Amino acid sequence: MDSQKVGASDIILTGDRTTGPLHLGHYVGSLKNRVVLQDVCPQFLLLADAQALTDNMGNYVKVRDNVLQVALDYLAVGIDPAKSTIFIQSLVPELSELSSYYLNLVTVARLERNPTIKDEIKLRGFERDIPAGFLTYPAAQAADITAFKATVVPVGADQVPMIEQTNEIVRRFNNSVDADILVECRALVPEDGARLPGIDGKAKMSKSMGNALSLGASEDDIRQAVKMMFTDPNHLRVADPGQVEGNVVFTYLDAFDPDRTAVEELKAHYRRGGLGDMVIKRRLEDILQTLLAPIRARREEFAKDPAQVMAILKAGTQKAREAAGRTLSEVKGAMGINYF
Amino acid sequence: MDSQKVGASDIILTGDRTTGPLHLGHYVGSLKNRVVLQDVCPQFLLLADAQALTDNMGNYVKVRDNVLQVALDYLAVGIDPAKSTIFIQSLVPELSELSSYYLNLVTVARLERNPTIKDEIKLRGFERDIPAGFLTYPAAQAADITAFKATVVPVGADQVPMIEQTNEIVRRFNNSVDADILVECRALVPEDGARLPGIDGKAKMSKSMGNALSLGASEDDIRQAVKMMFTDPNHLRVADPGQVEGNVVFTYLDAFDPDRTAVEELKAHYRRGGLGDMVIKRRLEDILQTLLAPIRARREEFAKDPAQVMAILKAGTQKAREAAGRTLSEVKGAMGINYF
Repeated sequence: MDSQKVGASDIILTGDRTTGPLHLGHYVGSLKNRVVLQDVCPQFLLLADAQALTDNMGNYVKVRDNVLQVALDYLAVGIDPAKSTIFIQSLVPELSELSSYYLNLVTVARLERNPTIKDEIKLRGFERDIPAGFLTYPAAQAADITAFKATVVPVGADQVPMIEQTNEIVRRFNNSVDADILVECRALVPEDGARLPGIDGKAKMSKSMGNALSLGASEDDIRQAVKMMFTDPNHLRVADPGQVEGNVVFTYLDAFDPDRTAVEELKAHYRRGGLGDMVIKRRLEDILQTLLAPIRARREEFAKDPAQVMAILKAGTQKAREAAGRTLSEVKGAMGINYF
Repeated sequence: MDSQKVGASDIILTGDRTTGPLHLGHYVGSLKNRVVLQDVCPQFLLLADAQALTDNMGNYVKVRDNVLQVALDYLAVGIDPAKSTIFIQSLVPELSELSSYYLNLVTVARLERNPTIKDEIKLRGFERDIPAGFLTYPAAQAADITAFKATVVPVGADQVPMIEQTNEIVRRFNNSVDADILVECRALVPEDGARLPGIDGKAKMSKSMGNALSLGASEDDIRQAVKMMFTDPNHLRVADPGQVEGNVVFTYLDAFDPDRTAVEELKAHYRRGGLGDMVIKRRLEDILQTLLAPIRARREEFAKDPAQVMAILKAGTQKAREAAGRTLSEVKGAMGINYF
C-alpha cells in the first residue's frame, strides 16, 4: 500500500469484521499501514459487527466477543485512538438509515452482477439461499464509506468492484437530488507483497484454516508456527538445492526482515544448496519474536482493563455518530424529508 | 373488517404510503375502521414516506409533501391523535436498524417467491431491474410491524403473504436467540364490500387512474364525480330494465346508504325498469355530500394551521420512537450486541 497516495485532505474508512482476533496477515496487509496513515489524515476504523452478522446470525456471541478482541489488536499494534476514530458499526444507526435509502438506488440485477458478491456466494455455497442482507451488503458498505465522506478505502484487489458500486450509488444519489452531497472514494490496493500466505503455504492466512499466527501469539506459539512452517518439501538434505518460490519462510523474511541484502544472500545460498531449513527458520523466528513481543505486551496490558478499551470505543462511536449524523442530515435534507 | 376480532390486548399497526391525498376508497377500506378501532386498543399509524421512496426515489418532493396531506386526511375523518399514534416512518431510525438485522433472516429466493412482491414487480414492469429496496421491502415491513409488537395488521387480501413473511422472520429471530422477543401478528382482512370501485367502474379507486373522489373533494367535485359515474351502459331509456351488478352507483349506495331497505327497493325497481340514473345519482350525491361535508370542513380547519399538524406528527413520532426503541433494545440485547 502506497501511503504516498494519501494526503492530508483525504479521509480514510476501513475496518474489520469482528469474527476473530487479527493475525500477522492483517498486520502486513493493513494494520501496519493504518499506523502510518493515522498521521496523514483522519481515519475511521469500523468494527464491523453488524456486517459480520450478515452471515453469522446464528453465531452472534462470537461476533460480539470479538469486538473487544479486534480493538485490543488495534491498540496493540499502535493505532492511537487520539488519531484514529475506532467505532462499533451496530451503534451507529445512521449507517442503517443511509443504507435503507441506498437500497433504492441499486437494482437486484446490479447486485447479482457484482463480482465480489458473486465470488463470495460461490465461496460460501449459498446458491439461491443467499441471505438478503448478504446480497444487499454493497449498499451497507456504501453507507459505511459515504457516511464519513471517506475518499480513500484500503481494500484487497478483489474488493475493487465494491468501491465501484459505492461510487455508482454516490453518483446516482447526487444526480437524483441534483447536488454534490456524497463524495466518491478511491480504492487503496496493497502491493502484491502485502499478502501474507498461511504458515502452511496456502495463499491466505486465516484463523479458520488453522494456518494463522495471531497478533497475541505467545513466544511458544511463534516458535511452533515457525517450526511447522511450509518450506520446500523436496529439500530433504541440507546439501541439496532448495526452492525459494512458494517457500513460506522466505516469503516471511521478505515481509519482515529489514536486512534485504542478507535475505538475498540467504536465498542464493538456499538455491545452490548447503543451507538448512533450521537456519532460516531460526532467523525468521528471531525476527517474529522481536516484532510480536511489544505487540503482545501492549495487548496484554490493554486486556487487563477491558472497561478502558470499551470506553475508547464508546468515545470513538460517539465521534463517528456525529460525523455520520451530519451526512445523514444532508442526505435527508436534500431529499426534503427533514420535517422538523 | 370485523372490529370484533380485535380486543383491548391487541396492538394495531397500519398506515399509508405518502404518495397522494387519500380518497373515498381509503375511507371505506380502512380509515372508517381506524376511527372505530382507536377506541379498542393502541393503534400506530405509519406515514410511510421511506417506504414510498422505494419506488419514488426520483420523486421525493411528492413523497414529502403528501406527509402533511395524508395527516390532514387522518385528522379530517376523525382519527384522534390522543388515541392513535400518528408518526413519520423516516424519523424512526430504529425501523431501519431492525430491518437491517431482519435482512439476514430471509433469503433472496424467499423474497422472490413472495406473491405480493411478484405481483408488484409485474405490475410495475420492473423485470430484473427491481430496486433492491423494493425486493427487500418485506424485511422493512416486518420491522414496521414488530417494532411496535403489533398483533393486528389490517391489510388487503393481496397483502396476506407479507404478514406470513413477517411471522417467518419473527419465528426465525426468536429461534436464533432462543427467546420470545418478537411477537407474531395476524392480518385483518376487510370484508368484500370494503373495496370501493373507481367512479368509472374499474375495480380499484386510484388517484393516478383519475377515477377517485378525494376526501377533500369540494361540493362541485362530488357533483361532477357522481354525474360521471359508471352505471349500466345499456340502460338507455328510463323505462328499460337496468343492471345493478357492476353499476357503481348501486355499489356506492351499498357502501354508504344507511337505509338498506330503501336501497333494495331501488335495486328491484331499477332491474324491472322505470327508474332513471338521475334519480339514483341524486340520492347518492346527497349521501356523499352529507358524508364528506364535515370531513372537508375539518380538513380545511386543520389545513389552516400546518404547524399544529406537524406538531401532532412530531409528538406521535416521539412516542413511536420510544416504543420502537424498546423493541430494538431487546433485539440487540438478545443478540448480545448491547455493549454499553
